Amino acid sequence: MIKYPTGQGNKNKIENQEATNFGRRGMSLEKMINLSNKHYLKYGVAVVHKKPTPVQIVKVDYPNRSHARITEAYFRQPSTTDYNGVYKGYYLDFEAKETTRATYLPLDNFHEHQIRHMEDCIKQKGICFVIVSFVKLNRFFMLPAELVIKYWNMKTKNGRKSIPLEIFIEKGFEFKPTNLPLVPYIDFVNKFINQEIS
Amino acid sequence: MIKYPTGQGNKNKIENQEATNFGRRGMSLEKMINLSNKHYLKYGVAVVHKKPTPVQIVKVDYPNRSHARITEAYFRQPSTTDYNGVYKGYYLDFEAKETTRATYLPLDNFHEHQIRHMEDCIKQKGICFVIVSFVKLNRFFMLPAELVIKYWNMKTKNGRKSIPLEIFIEKGFEFKPTNLPLVPYIDFVNKFINQEIS
Repeated sequence: MIKYPTGQGNKNKIENQEATNFGRRGMSLEKMINLSNKHYLKYGVAVVHKKPTPVQIVKVDYPNRSHARITEAYFRQPSTTDYNGVYKGYYLDFEAKETTRATYLPLDNFHEHQIRHMEDCIKQKGICFVIVSFVKLNRFFMLPAELVIKYWNMKTKNGRKSIPLEIFIEKGFEFKPTNLPLVPYIDFVNKFINQEIS
Repeated sequence: MIKYPTGQGNKNKIENQEATNFGRRGMSLEKMINLSNKHYLKYGVAVVHKKPTPVQIVKVDYPNRSHARITEAYFRQPSTTDYNGVYKGYYLDFEAKETTRATYLPLDNFHEHQIRHMEDCIKQKGICFVIVSFVKLNRFFMLPAELVIKYWNMKTKNGRKSIPLEIFIEKGFEFKPTNLPLVPYIDFVNKFINQEIS
């Protein structure tokens, strides 16, 4: 039986208070999404989790029977996007990206694997999208994965290196992380289902 | 830019050959499922991945700029099941368990977290189930998560400690891992969708 570190419960409580009382000051997009996942889960809206970072474990020490300590491990390349889950029977799958660029999102924020994964999920009728934070502009968007794939394929064909901000403004869903959930991705999903975004 | 270990491609090729040429001799249930996920992905049937093992990373060394080495980390308790994905618009979610018991599956194979996660997914109309290998009997079953939850709740109420083998025989879907995919969970899912299993 492995003993896990304790205190997670308290940490979560503090994080929720932070989000409620002080807004999202200095909070990473990942943290904002994790809090939003918790919010949706708590209120029975959707079940979405971040996948753990894939790690190749090489060496584990057992100082005592109940406690394992990993002493050598390496990061592995993720074969999928970071987030997936279920909402009213719909499969959701998304990736989050932050950029310091002011007028475009560089395509090298994505791995080939992630693009192929989004393609595969769309073929199986999953709802796939990306959540992008333009840090310097303080602007936040969701964009259907179909558009990311389209621009990615232009990269191979004609060397395109980015998705322009205008595409996010014209085709995406802009949100302001001012209320809970900070990242209201279910609003985007509802619009996508109702074909208000495509 | 992080460099990841190479050679994964070759390893996969060898594993596929193993599965094809030599059957599943000595193969763990996890490995069998991972090969089945690859098979379904390759033929465009479904997109299901095992989630990485959750690890809390404490210390990382950078011997050079492109190579990160984790030197202290700990296993964390998973907050969900191990596998999820999408099939024809359906959200799939499952957990795999091996037992050496011959007449029952002990309920302590599950964490409270996993049971709650399966409940949450079912509420969102996900298709949730468990895949169980009775190692000594060389018998394999899939069982709807609803039944696992039912038995788990009897644990709290009247101290029940296991799910009898008979329940798997009567209510589950038995399979023999003789063809590819070794673990034909999509057959089970189709029966579940068509309400031949409930």
